[in-house]
Amino acid sequence: MRADWIAVDWGTSNLRAWAMGADGSALAEASSGDGMAGLAREAFEGALLSLVGTWLGEDATTVIACGMVGSRQGWAEAPYRAVPCAPAGGAVRVETRDPRLAMHILPGLKQMDPPDVMRGEETQVAGFLACEPDFEGALCLPGTHSKWVEAAGGRVAAFRTVMTGEIFALLSKSSVLRHSVGATMGAGFEATVDEALAAPEAVPAHLFALRAGDLLSDVAPEDARARLSGLLIGAELAAMAGRWRGRPVALIGASGLAALYARALDVAGVSAHMADGTACTLDGLRAAHAEIAP
Amino acid sequence: MRADWIAVDWGTSNLRAWAMGADGSALAEASSGDGMAGLAREAFEGALLSLVGTWLGEDATTVIACGMVGSRQGWAEAPYRAVPCAPAGGAVRVETRDPRLAMHILPGLKQMDPPDVMRGEETQVAGFLACEPDFEGALCLPGTHSKWVEAAGGRVAAFRTVMTGEIFALLSKSSVLRHSVGATMGAGFEATVDEALAAPEAVPAHLFALRAGDLLSDVAPEDARARLSGLLIGAELAAMAGRWRGRPVALIGASGLAALYARALDVAGVSAHMADGTACTLDGLRAAHAEIAP
Repeated sequence: MRADWIAVDWGTSNLRAWAMGADGSALAEASSGDGMAGLAREAFEGALLSLVGTWLGEDATTVIACGMVGSRQGWAEAPYRAVPCAPAGGAVRVETRDPRLAMHILPGLKQMDPPDVMRGEETQVAGFLACEPDFEGALCLPGTHSKWVEAAGGRVAAFRTVMTGEIFALLSKSSVLRHSVGATMGAGFEATVDEALAAPEAVPAHLFALRAGDLLSDVAPEDARARLSGLLIGAELAAMAGRWRGRPVALIGASGLAALYARALDVAGVSAHMADGTACTLDGLRAAHAEIAP
Repeated sequence: MRADWIAVDWGTSNLRAWAMGADGSALAEASSGDGMAGLAREAFEGALLSLVGTWLGEDATTVIACGMVGSRQGWAEAPYRAVPCAPAGGAVRVETRDPRLAMHILPGLKQMDPPDVMRGEETQVAGFLACEPDFEGALCLPGTHSKWVEAAGGRVAAFRTVMTGEIFALLSKSSVLRHSVGATMGAGFEATVDEALAAPEAVPAHLFALRAGDLLSDVAPEDARARLSGLLIGAELAAMAGRWRGRPVALIGASGLAALYARALDVAGVSAHMADGTACTLDGLRAAHAEIAP
């Protein structure tokens, strides 16, 4: 099987590639744990070849990659483009030793004030807006670092990053709360989101109560997890209220976490449009391909 | 040198003892790293004897200890007393193999709604109130877990714990911010406290900007540390505003962190009364001694 071109999502810890047909359909998919963080600069080409080598013909095949592969610590730096701008564009051509690769890396986006950066999510935003060109409102991409994008006229007007996922992991695994927070979600998520939205300034005072509640009255660890999640996601929504309140909201992401954000937004009276994260990534890479090799 | 009685502050990671004279003065001091966390139950007595053995006579010497030594994982559990109550009292007599020790452990305090606990700080509060019996207002004890105590009529009416110190350590050492946060404090602390007090709900959205500001415009790591500290302490003050706003405030603690909290309160227009943490601990243990061995 020979790919017409190859789409690549190359993040910090994973490498994922699709063999694309001339009609834009994904013919095959492959993935490995060869993320950016584990590779020295000279190892990227080999990691890619070992995953997609069988899809290559004798002539050069166009490869388009998004994600941390384009960071300063990646294969080759694809400098951030400044918002406001269209979410996709500015692919950087990277030289390879193997002539069968015509390698391109997509840049991330930067915002100078307040300072912010993204790398990889811009391609999902591009994919979403390629399908919904008239969308005007807030795009939320939940993750270790959630991204909140203000979209208008097919462009990214502004964005913010909130570290909720990373803070949740640190508090639930590495803080004193680890003794009281279980591995699965119990009850109380919605009620806690409501509490956090009503008084976001009080959230810092509610965290230790998850530990004390366990010591004093045996709160179930599953419920402590639901409450911790509700407090942190509720605080994130409160911080981003100016972006989503009274506006259309779309959630782009993997089902589990995006579904949790949808439940939280529902508490705030917002019914979010749901978009699959992988589908948006592929659509964004397709849009980049149409620009590079029309 | 023979102690009339022995005062002990026995925390999670440290053991500190004073040989006390009959007039209540501290004649000698000793400390070790034999904190509660590193000791099995049967090892506490030996750890204490190795530190204070030379201060003992042939008859039993009264020893009074506060802190995590009285937790379920400590030498012997001294069950929490429920607020509202006087900060000191309820010492638990602990049997020892060595007849020269008349060992007592002071209990911590608990609050059922909202759930909260403290162990060790109640003795500092007792010491402060022994010296300032008419104080009515907020006592703040900064630390890994800051305690905010509502004091009235010489009693603890209520209290809350805020995990600011632990969250600061996790974010500055274990999150993505570790790449951008330096080891010493630079400029911007007061301005960031002001920002957090004015819009505490926005604090979650400001954290990642410390990383992005470094990537995009080389913010000095010392200034990133000052801003992170200002954001988190500012958010803590905002969460506790109902306790300190328009009321007398006293800060009990070690000089560095308490001084930082004093600067933060100053931004909010509050001039806090400063009390030395060790002096308060000793005064609290003296008050407990007066009750146990009058």
